[in-house]
Amino acid sequence: MYDVEKRGDKPIYEYLYMCIRDDIVGGRIKGGEKLLSKRRLAQQEGVALITVENAYEQLIVEGYIESRERSGYYAVMDAERFAYATGSGIDNRPAIDKRNTNSIYKKDKMAFHGSTNTRRYTSRKDNKESVTGVTNNKEPALADFVSQRLHDDAFPFDIWSKLMRKVLSDRNPECLAPPDPCGLEVLRYAIAGYLMRSRGIDANPDNIIVGPGTEYLENILLVLSGGGALTAVEDPGYKKIGLVCERSGHKCLHIPVNKDGLDVFALEGTSVRLVNISPSHQFPTGAVMSAVRRAQLLDWAGREDAYIAEDDYDSEFRFSGRPIPPISASYPDRVIYMNTFTRTLAPSIRIAFMVLPDKLMERYREKLSFYSGTVSSFDQLVLAEFINGGYYERHLSRMRNYYSKRRENILKIFEDKGDNSLFTPIKDNAGLRLILKGPDWLDDEKFIKELSEKGIKISCMNDYCYSYKKMYEHLFLLSFGAANEDDFKKALPVMEEVSINYRN
Amino acid sequence: MYDVEKRGDKPIYEYLYMCIRDDIVGGRIKGGEKLLSKRRLAQQEGVALITVENAYEQLIVEGYIESRERSGYYAVMDAERFAYATGSGIDNRPAIDKRNTNSIYKKDKMAFHGSTNTRRYTSRKDNKESVTGVTNNKEPALADFVSQRLHDDAFPFDIWSKLMRKVLSDRNPECLAPPDPCGLEVLRYAIAGYLMRSRGIDANPDNIIVGPGTEYLENILLVLSGGGALTAVEDPGYKKIGLVCERSGHKCLHIPVNKDGLDVFALEGTSVRLVNISPSHQFPTGAVMSAVRRAQLLDWAGREDAYIAEDDYDSEFRFSGRPIPPISASYPDRVIYMNTFTRTLAPSIRIAFMVLPDKLMERYREKLSFYSGTVSSFDQLVLAEFINGGYYERHLSRMRNYYSKRRENILKIFEDKGDNSLFTPIKDNAGLRLILKGPDWLDDEKFIKELSEKGIKISCMNDYCYSYKKMYEHLFLLSFGAANEDDFKKALPVMEEVSINYRN
Repeated sequence: MYDVEKRGDKPIYEYLYMCIRDDIVGGRIKGGEKLLSKRRLAQQEGVALITVENAYEQLIVEGYIESRERSGYYAVMDAERFAYATGSGIDNRPAIDKRNTNSIYKKDKMAFHGSTNTRRYTSRKDNKESVTGVTNNKEPALADFVSQRLHDDAFPFDIWSKLMRKVLSDRNPECLAPPDPCGLEVLRYAIAGYLMRSRGIDANPDNIIVGPGTEYLENILLVLSGGGALTAVEDPGYKKIGLVCERSGHKCLHIPVNKDGLDVFALEGTSVRLVNISPSHQFPTGAVMSAVRRAQLLDWAGREDAYIAEDDYDSEFRFSGRPIPPISASYPDRVIYMNTFTRTLAPSIRIAFMVLPDKLMERYREKLSFYSGTVSSFDQLVLAEFINGGYYERHLSRMRNYYSKRRENILKIFEDKGDNSLFTPIKDNAGLRLILKGPDWLDDEKFIKELSEKGIKISCMNDYCYSYKKMYEHLFLLSFGAANEDDFKKALPVMEEVSINYRN
Repeated sequence: MYDVEKRGDKPIYEYLYMCIRDDIVGGRIKGGEKLLSKRRLAQQEGVALITVENAYEQLIVEGYIESRERSGYYAVMDAERFAYATGSGIDNRPAIDKRNTNSIYKKDKMAFHGSTNTRRYTSRKDNKESVTGVTNNKEPALADFVSQRLHDDAFPFDIWSKLMRKVLSDRNPECLAPPDPCGLEVLRYAIAGYLMRSRGIDANPDNIIVGPGTEYLENILLVLSGGGALTAVEDPGYKKIGLVCERSGHKCLHIPVNKDGLDVFALEGTSVRLVNISPSHQFPTGAVMSAVRRAQLLDWAGREDAYIAEDDYDSEFRFSGRPIPPISASYPDRVIYMNTFTRTLAPSIRIAFMVLPDKLMERYREKLSFYSGTVSSFDQLVLAEFINGGYYERHLSRMRNYYSKRRENILKIFEDKGDNSLFTPIKDNAGLRLILKGPDWLDDEKFIKELSEKGIKISCMNDYCYSYKKMYEHLFLLSFGAANEDDFKKALPVMEEVSINYRN
């Protein structure tokens, strides 16, 4: 059926995944059609069973196929929706898949991609207050699962210092000139190269805008969307983006997400012109936006002349499987790709970027090119050297291992406890955050407050909800970027003790 | 009359200036009252004539007294307006001084404080296009009087590099944590100390907000002014601030300036809630806002519950006389002090700051504290060390000498030419820009364009005007931050040749 000899330097599982995906998108496998069993396909292709399992797993995660219990694997029913994605265009839109509009964590095991995002809605005194506004005393927390602070060994001080010294002694003429408002050319080229290597995005360096953070870039997008244009954000989601909209006087719709990602149906009939999503690892639910939803969203955006801002913040920390492809790789005319170095390098390094579609870039040049650059040229030059010298990708690979081990060690704590634990991790294979399902009797806010008084900082899913709070009750977010397995070992008994007290 | 023995460590001229100023503000010298002649006062106080001349000069520059030809020195007629400034408050507002509403460069010799600001309205390709949008070929310009680029010897590379190495090897815990959105505490304290020493401002470090540029900070002020609030900017003025308003959907009034600064009368009856001014050295005219105007503006702001954003960008480069005091030193409840390190250190270092009045700071905490910090913690730590180690003030003093010499050398070129020159510098004792008055027959835009084609970049006052262009015709701005006296020597004959061709 497929010729695995043609895979080039790709792993076999990835080659199989791509072949099947193309067959589904291309209509050679129809929506609802049953696929070969894993065993049959493995025999037919002469590959190991695990190889086929990995390929199918990736197709499931990205929403091309689904597993039906005691029956087998099927191409998703909405496969005809991919017509848009392949460029043929369709006008008859079938009804949206309304599965799982209750809780994305209840109905379907497959949906359990808990978020491990390192972002959070920070209050001003970032290190002094928990997300719920509880002020802690100044003693160091027993365990802090909220902070984005890095451990000393997580930043490449030596290389950074070496490159900074080089930049300052080179006395590059760019050091003493006003920086290009979009970012130094050398950095924009370095970013474009990295995007091509790591995310398959063929970005034009002239369409890249560098800024001191995602919020700053969002502000630019709001201006480019035009005065009074409606913006949409995910609910639950990264609250800051909604706040940026509101504070700058823009109206903002909060659109529910479920296990397949944003509910595109909720956008119909609105005048939304910009929708912010995190499709490869939704924050905070961890959902991967399904292939069908992606096609629906692109279809909607095309019809409405709207833009999709794709926040790809967590793509660097996927611990198994193939990285989820960014939408912007295939649809650069509709999708703004956004990412930041503040997550992958340090929260104190304020460099983020976005890739604008040509039309928006034109609008930017017309309307906003008078702005001065917002990131120091010294830092931009160092970062460019860091990427071009191969240090960045090596650093990411080191950090992926570093966090992967930490994640495994933490999950092992729960495994060792067996079924007796009051808290159950919702397994996810990406990001720096665990979602724990706690006992039903908890009052989440009170619980977090009491823990905070005992020196343990965690946040709950409800903190990120605009509506639908009920759906996300008793789900807690523990970031393991700053805290490690020993912190977990100390924290878990306290969390259980406090929980048990609440039972009475 | 005054006891110069009581002056402490102040220079005598400064002490005299302060005594007379206080007498005027305190009503002991009435508006319109004639002062002692310089000679009489010098005899009476037993000081040199030059000392009194310096004191009177400063009082004239700041608008407390005026010189009437062949008659002597008089306290300004509107001196009763200082009632507000002394806190007594008045309700009967005398008619505004309408002198010099034509051109601020024609009627009064005293008004000739030409701007030497280093800022300009930059187009996107900052170093490739002139302000009028003319694209130059890629050959280096013969002489560039528009660029903000620094010469190699104008940045303290060695010290900066040393301090950066220190910060990176200290591994300060702040390096790896999300920075406070307002800026690191250590930097805010350093800035507060500097403001006290250099500008007499007693700033609360908790009211300081650090950002990557004045435009970013202005955006914050617009949000804090409330949705739909009207904002005012100077005309002519620093165009970017008006553009920031418009692009973010805020309405903006352009208020004329004359030799005394902003025409406060034009604010009456408007619903302006925020007015942006550069009182100590107006950009681009170089006017110093007179004492009377300051009092009027504060009076207006008090009545209207409006705020004054005081851009103090050029205060570091005043080459003679006492620095002009910032309004915010005396009225921190009404005035936002703003300044930037991108002018005094390098245009590539994106660190600016503002000091908010308590009320606005409260509003900021309520509305905008969710924003992430916008300046790298590494850079903030280095800058804090740079200020606290005394390097900043030494650097400023060095740069003041550096530019002062350059300015003198350039003025000497004109002096040597005598009255034959087609271009006359309008003398100013501050900033990094000369204003040249050119021949009346020029078409400014064409002239600049032709010069640009010949490799000489200059801008004209008209580029900074919103209305009133006629008033500012044939005035050209030459920044000498990037170009030196040799560049001037090369440029001037070309400028004259091109001018003469236009005559025919």
